[in-house]
Amino acid sequence: MLRGVIRGNIVSTRKQDSLVGSKFMEVQLMKNGELTDEYLIAIDGGVGAGIGEVVLITTGSSARVALESNHSTPVPADAVIVGIVD
Amino acid sequence: MLRGVIRGNIVSTRKQDSLVGSKFMEVQLMKNGELTDEYLIAIDGGVGAGIGEVVLITTGSSARVALESNHSTPVPADAVIVGIVD
Amino acid sequence: MLRGVIRGNIVSTRKQDSLVGSKFMEVQLMKNGELTDEYLIAIDGGVGAGIGEVVLITTGSSARVALESNHSTPVPADAVIVGIVD
Amino acid sequence: MLRGVIRGNIVSTRKQDSLVGSKFMEVQLMKNGELTDEYLIAIDGGVGAGIGEVVLITTGSSARVALESNHSTPVPADAVIVGIVD
Amino acid sequence: MLRGVIRGNIVSTRKQDSLVGSKFMEVQLMKNGELTDEYLIAIDGGVGAGIGEVVLITTGSSARVALESNHSTPVPADAVIVGIVD
Repeated sequence: MLRGVIRGNIVSTRKQDSLVGSKFMEVQLMKNGELTDEYLIAIDGGVGAGIGEVVLITTGSSARVALESNHSTPVPADAVIVGIVD
Repeated sequence: MLRGVIRGNIVSTRKQDSLVGSKFMEVQLMKNGELTDEYLIAIDGGVGAGIGEVVLITTGSSARVALESNHSTPVPADAVIVGIVD
Repeated sequence: MLRGVIRGNIVSTRKQDSLVGSKFMEVQLMKNGELTDEYLIAIDGGVGAGIGEVVLITTGSSARVALESNHSTPVPADAVIVGIVD
Repeated sequence: MLRGVIRGNIVSTRKQDSLVGSKFMEVQLMKNGELTDEYLIAIDGGVGAGIGEVVLITTGSSARVALESNHSTPVPADAVIVGIVD
Repeated sequence: MLRGVIRGNIVSTRKQDSLVGSKFMEVQLMKNGELTDEYLIAIDGGVGAGIGEVVLITTGSSARVALESNHSTPVPADAVIVGIVD
């Protein structure tokens, strides 16, 4: 998993139907608790994280699994926010 | 997910049958809204994106999932354009 | 697989239900037996590893497989500690 | 997907049974049409590409999917040549 | 696929049950036939490779597939040696 700070939202009106309702967040990644110059875009996995919060992100096919309980069809995600770090 | 700008098309006449009809786009990746020196080739996932547009890309096995609704057989994709950023 | 040293725990109270009970460990990765400047966060796969121990980590969809025997539903993990190096 | 130029063959006599018949090609990767210093080894996915040709490569689990139609058992591939660039 | 030279064994007595019997090898990766400064740990996929031999490695979910024929339950591997280069 990756840890990072949410820096903003990405808005996409024209997107695949399976992504309607997903919130895309730009996340600045951390390494050993320090901010890095790396970023990725993750979908909020229902933990209600907002800008400035430190979050846990899962990647790859497990990102899709992380969205399964809330969606009837698979969501083509490759990065999902699954927790907020205390 | 990744964000980037479509820079061109890649044309491949001799390809696997499962890829017939797929549009291959060369995408220059962005990081925190800035262009980087990284590129990848993604298949258009039916959002109708063209050269110069900023797009969202999903990678890995979810790229294949992103093409499932439009194809009767699995498409061997590892990067698909799933949205256009406003 | 990757090898690394466990450097700390990451605590996340607000997280997906499927992750309740999982222990998140920050791991400093090694290369040919030397410590590197790379880190990742892995879930303890039941081997009981603690801070300072050298561990083996599996990544990607196999991380999810590594947690299957202990969970009734899939855990959205992308990195799991599967062994302790002697 | 990745684009690159085939630079040579890798010969492996002692290999897993599922890989018998697979052709391993060393590919020099390109970025935005320029050659890079990165290489990977991909299996020919039946498009008949030879040394010096520019090809499209799919990676990850989709590489396995790209070989499914020609094999009765799964081939443990992580990179397959799926097209030749015009 | 990746090519590399086996540099040593990693011994792990305390590990997940599904990994009992697996041999972990530290491999120094090659690029276009030259050694690099990159390493990974791969499980021997039954090809009998030893220290100093040049091998082919498959990564990701295909690593798990590469071990399927020899195991009744899935092995949580993300890198497996599938061939020895001549």
